[in-house]
Amino acid sequence: MKCRKCGEKAVVNLREHRLSLCKGCYIPWFVDYTEKTIKKFRMIDRGDRVLVAVSGGKDSLALWDVLNELGYETFGLYIHLGIDYDGYSDVSLQKSKQFAERIGKKLVVVDVEKEVGAGIPELRGITRRPVCSVCGMTKRYYMNRIAMELGASVLATGHNLDDEVSQLLGNILNWNIDYLIQQSPVLPAREEGLKKKVKPFCYFTEKQTLLYTVLRNIDYVEMECPFSVGATSIFNKDILNQLEHRSPGIKRRFYDGFLNNKHVFLKDVVDEIGLRNCSNCGMPTVNEVCSFCKTKERVRSVVQ
Amino acid sequence: MKCRKCGEKAVVNLREHRLSLCKGCYIPWFVDYTEKTIKKFRMIDRGDRVLVAVSGGKDSLALWDVLNELGYETFGLYIHLGIDYDGYSDVSLQKSKQFAERIGKKLVVVDVEKEVGAGIPELRGITRRPVCSVCGMTKRYYMNRIAMELGASVLATGHNLDDEVSQLLGNILNWNIDYLIQQSPVLPAREEGLKKKVKPFCYFTEKQTLLYTVLRNIDYVEMECPFSVGATSIFNKDILNQLEHRSPGIKRRFYDGFLNNKHVFLKDVVDEIGLRNCSNCGMPTVNEVCSFCKTKERVRSVVQ
Repeated sequence: MKCRKCGEKAVVNLREHRLSLCKGCYIPWFVDYTEKTIKKFRMIDRGDRVLVAVSGGKDSLALWDVLNELGYETFGLYIHLGIDYDGYSDVSLQKSKQFAERIGKKLVVVDVEKEVGAGIPELRGITRRPVCSVCGMTKRYYMNRIAMELGASVLATGHNLDDEVSQLLGNILNWNIDYLIQQSPVLPAREEGLKKKVKPFCYFTEKQTLLYTVLRNIDYVEMECPFSVGATSIFNKDILNQLEHRSPGIKRRFYDGFLNNKHVFLKDVVDEIGLRNCSNCGMPTVNEVCSFCKTKERVRSVVQ
Repeated sequence: MKCRKCGEKAVVNLREHRLSLCKGCYIPWFVDYTEKTIKKFRMIDRGDRVLVAVSGGKDSLALWDVLNELGYETFGLYIHLGIDYDGYSDVSLQKSKQFAERIGKKLVVVDVEKEVGAGIPELRGITRRPVCSVCGMTKRYYMNRIAMELGASVLATGHNLDDEVSQLLGNILNWNIDYLIQQSPVLPAREEGLKKKVKPFCYFTEKQTLLYTVLRNIDYVEMECPFSVGATSIFNKDILNQLEHRSPGIKRRFYDGFLNNKHVFLKDVVDEIGLRNCSNCGMPTVNEVCSFCKTKERVRSVVQ
């Protein structure tokens, strides 16, 4: 198998793109393709200040690297979730810090335990909500808040195609219309205080972001979140990999078909969700007090 | 495990219904549940004359049996597809005839080879279309035509929940909006000459129709169609069985969610497809000459 660009020995065969590439040509292809995706969805403009949410994993560090290579103004946010198991959160922080130093960019660190009074494992018990639900809420809150406080105009996350189609499949199997409306590689800013959110890796599979990370010698945390064992999202990814193996390109067709048809078939239900500002912290919410402040209050009452 | 109705030893645990039943209680439950489905979707009225499309397989014979038990006026249609492999079509015809005799009902037989001049295996080569596509077209044509000619008011097919969700998944992965619009357990009659079509088993899984068939000692053809080996529909059924194993009831939720939301999210695209009558045979079509007549003409030109 030879590289389609230079004829050298290929390291990867991108079946859905009908493209074989060598190491030397894969990296620029990956960077260019990210830029194409950014332009296609009008994710980031040249004047933007981009806050990249990093977890220390391959996707988010690769994203920060590519945005930096493309010359965008970036800074990173690491949210320390207080997950002790095998030092998961500490190791992830360390990898994120190392990478920030390597590219010479600023990394903001938020420590959930210090901020809220409890880490994610304790919040799970206190709120009695599924752990991924509390964790997601907490991360969304800080990502938006830090973006506001530090004057970022865009918030970028490392979600890849596998993340996106796995979520899409779950939402469609259960017909979660509200979640379907919200699922997009780009969500515009809202004047009530929601920052624009973008997913520039939405067209790359997990294998493709992994290959970029490895070829660029980026040191990332290989451990998966200990709470993700047996998660539906991972089960759905396996299902979609079986479908992709049988019909190469189906993940991309499924995702593009959804994005292309969304505004047709969800036309009458795509009403903007009414937002107001939390009476406690001022962040956007659908209620008087936001979920995050309610959780914080609950921690206070339990811990005292 | 005990029967929830009578306390005897249960033979089946219907997880999605939270119901365990013994042999004696399963049969009436299955018949009642079919009637509930018929009423829910207004599939058949008491005055209707129902043409049941039978293949000799478990689903269609069980359907004919249940409709007969429920006291509907029925007659059967067997379409001989001319598939020789292991005598598939002949054996299927024999099982269908046996069953018609058992319940004392009329069975109409159409022989595709005689009618068209070529069986399905030859039509595949002549039309160069996927075999399941030609076969489906041919069956739909004769089901509707015989229903018209013999004055049936409703056409019933034995599609089960697995058939329905497998088709739904395929149509959604590829966003075949036209097919999604047409997918329904009940399609109303069209004045251009389309008979009302119903699927009274749409809520039963394959295992459930099999159990009914076995408990009722119905002799059916166990062989699968030789052309179905490796079919996407079978692959998708396996995928959905994996999902069901993890989340019991998800097939039903996926199907119901689709049916409940269809008229919301497909609102603007659910325009009735314009139909006219084929200038050759008079059957409804979107073109001047229907696909079936075109195929027949092609066979004539090739065979002569």
